[in-house]
Amino acid sequence: MKVQGKHRRTIWLNDDGRSVGIIDQTKLPHRFECVALESLADATRAIREMWVRGAPLIGATAAYGVALAMRKAASDAALAEACATLLATRPTAINLRWALEDMRGHLANLPAERRAAAAYARAAAICDEDVAQNEAIGRHGLPLLAEAHKRRGDGGPVHVLTHCNAGWLATIDWGTALSPIYRAHDAGIPVHVWVDETRPRNQGAGLTAWELGQHGVPHTVIVDNAGGHLMQRGEVDLCIVGTDRTTAAGDVCNKIGTYLKALAARDNALPFYVALPGTSIDWRLGKGSAIPIEERAAAEVASVTGLDAEGRLATVRLTPEASPVRNIGFDVTPARLVTALITERGVTEASAAGLARLYPDRPRAA
Amino acid sequence: MKVQGKHRRTIWLNDDGRSVGIIDQTKLPHRFECVALESLADATRAIREMWVRGAPLIGATAAYGVALAMRKAASDAALAEACATLLATRPTAINLRWALEDMRGHLANLPAERRAAAAYARAAAICDEDVAQNEAIGRHGLPLLAEAHKRRGDGGPVHVLTHCNAGWLATIDWGTALSPIYRAHDAGIPVHVWVDETRPRNQGAGLTAWELGQHGVPHTVIVDNAGGHLMQRGEVDLCIVGTDRTTAAGDVCNKIGTYLKALAARDNALPFYVALPGTSIDWRLGKGSAIPIEERAAAEVASVTGLDAEGRLATVRLTPEASPVRNIGFDVTPARLVTALITERGVTEASAAGLARLYPDRPRAA
Repeated sequence: MKVQGKHRRTIWLNDDGRSVGIIDQTKLPHRFECVALESLADATRAIREMWVRGAPLIGATAAYGVALAMRKAASDAALAEACATLLATRPTAINLRWALEDMRGHLANLPAERRAAAAYARAAAICDEDVAQNEAIGRHGLPLLAEAHKRRGDGGPVHVLTHCNAGWLATIDWGTALSPIYRAHDAGIPVHVWVDETRPRNQGAGLTAWELGQHGVPHTVIVDNAGGHLMQRGEVDLCIVGTDRTTAAGDVCNKIGTYLKALAARDNALPFYVALPGTSIDWRLGKGSAIPIEERAAAEVASVTGLDAEGRLATVRLTPEASPVRNIGFDVTPARLVTALITERGVTEASAAGLARLYPDRPRAA
Repeated sequence: MKVQGKHRRTIWLNDDGRSVGIIDQTKLPHRFECVALESLADATRAIREMWVRGAPLIGATAAYGVALAMRKAASDAALAEACATLLATRPTAINLRWALEDMRGHLANLPAERRAAAAYARAAAICDEDVAQNEAIGRHGLPLLAEAHKRRGDGGPVHVLTHCNAGWLATIDWGTALSPIYRAHDAGIPVHVWVDETRPRNQGAGLTAWELGQHGVPHTVIVDNAGGHLMQRGEVDLCIVGTDRTTAAGDVCNKIGTYLKALAARDNALPFYVALPGTSIDWRLGKGSAIPIEERAAAEVASVTGLDAEGRLATVRLTPEASPVRNIGFDVTPARLVTALITERGVTEASAAGLARLYPDRPRAA
């Protein structure tokens, strides 16, 4: 997608042929700053400190992190250590594990001297595959928006509610949840997006609003509390969100608060779609309650970072100093609340049977 | 309740016998500052700018606002103007209208020269009645917490989730939703409160956490997105919230986001209680969808105020400058999602029949 009119991906190989460029997403929407990752340590830090985030982009950054590690030392021990270090950064996103297993599979049987080049090539391929997958998600999701527009009957915009950021910035390009929205917008279907700000890290207010704005898609930022009311008042036509991990039964683990919006959609008989690439399905898990849920630092809830009156990034504390805080990163929306899953292979019901039909080549339980 | 060990109410007549003391709640939890209201304009500003908030405290402040106006000019025109000015400050809280109608009823037939003294007396009585009502709400709500504690069976604390601030600070003393919690805590029943931070104005993170902390009640601040997940994981025993307006049919209008928590409570078979004084019932309304919903300034969503690194109150912007924002203050939780209403007259089902039984003396529809 475009930033200030120029097409960009969220991760790229720099012209030096070794360092990896990313956008420091912690500075958005206030500053657009690119960072060069030079080492495994840089890649690890970028994921852990959420300069990059979003399940697909985490996977791609981890793949390049392995490449950066291999450039320095490519022994079996170095490969194992790089994978272990990167895997420990974030526990919930399944793409991280998927990307690292993929990299290991491509590199383990190569002689050490060929590993670095192969790792860079494979990381680039993972990025290209992600772009193709997300483009396909948009293609398959487009008819759902077109139908919603027709159902309205008044020619007015389709009002889509989304939570967190499952857009261009969460992937390499296009996004997952936002991909059908960009498609629809580009195809001339009027779309308006209700953007949940998505506390505690405000990826909606900071990232989704920013990228929709850069692309010219009409949108409005709301607090996470507001979506239910808007649905009650008929101001939402459908919801689309992303997922960090989907079970084989169609349970969806996504940013904390997703479950509450799914409940409101059901209570108001509105479609609740989840967009995902096959790489975010954890075929080993049936029930979503088995997904490990990341708990993060209390400071993310106790305080907020934004732009102060002097235009500087500043952090302010919201809670009393003595009050304990808990910061849970994700929740699980059971498949029964999901109208359909939008994947790169098509749209299916959120169930073991639906997913099995789309992915006959899935890994089988041992 | 106590602040730094000293018993306080949220509004009081100062020793000069005319100015009215309040706490500037916009500065909490970071600073405890009291302000003297000297005029109708002061009282109007205090309500509109939310130095005071919470339906019962808004009503009491409006009552004192009439008294301050009467001290200056007590003609029929002055009385009408004072009531109209105060009524226009906040559209949703029914207590505001109730208090102003009550004041007008007490003053209209008095000669002008007696109105100021009568207004002060009546405002003080409204405050005392509020304290008595809230104390009774706590008494009636206590058994619900005691039973939940017994049901747990493990002697561990009852985990109560609350939204926004319906505590001591929202009333004159005790609070509505928090009144049973203070009672239980004082009675030795272990209680732990999950405090929704309650964006956009963070009355949970700022006010509820602060007042629970001052009283020594164990609590943990969470983002508004987290409650559903905690319910799914069995970490919540029951919910109690307040209300700004309750219809004769038991629909509850409360801070935006309340509806989402009620949906999650139902999905997890947990009790969802609403605590209220009879003064917050709008007997003229059946369906909650008829309640006027306040929309407030976009800046409350686009930015957040807290304590910066230098200990100063600072406001930081969260959203891109170009992104539109919508700020809806309240939502309506339909009676079907409310397990019971806790009133000063006892606990009843959220229905027209339930409320009619408790309030046989209610005003009848014209």
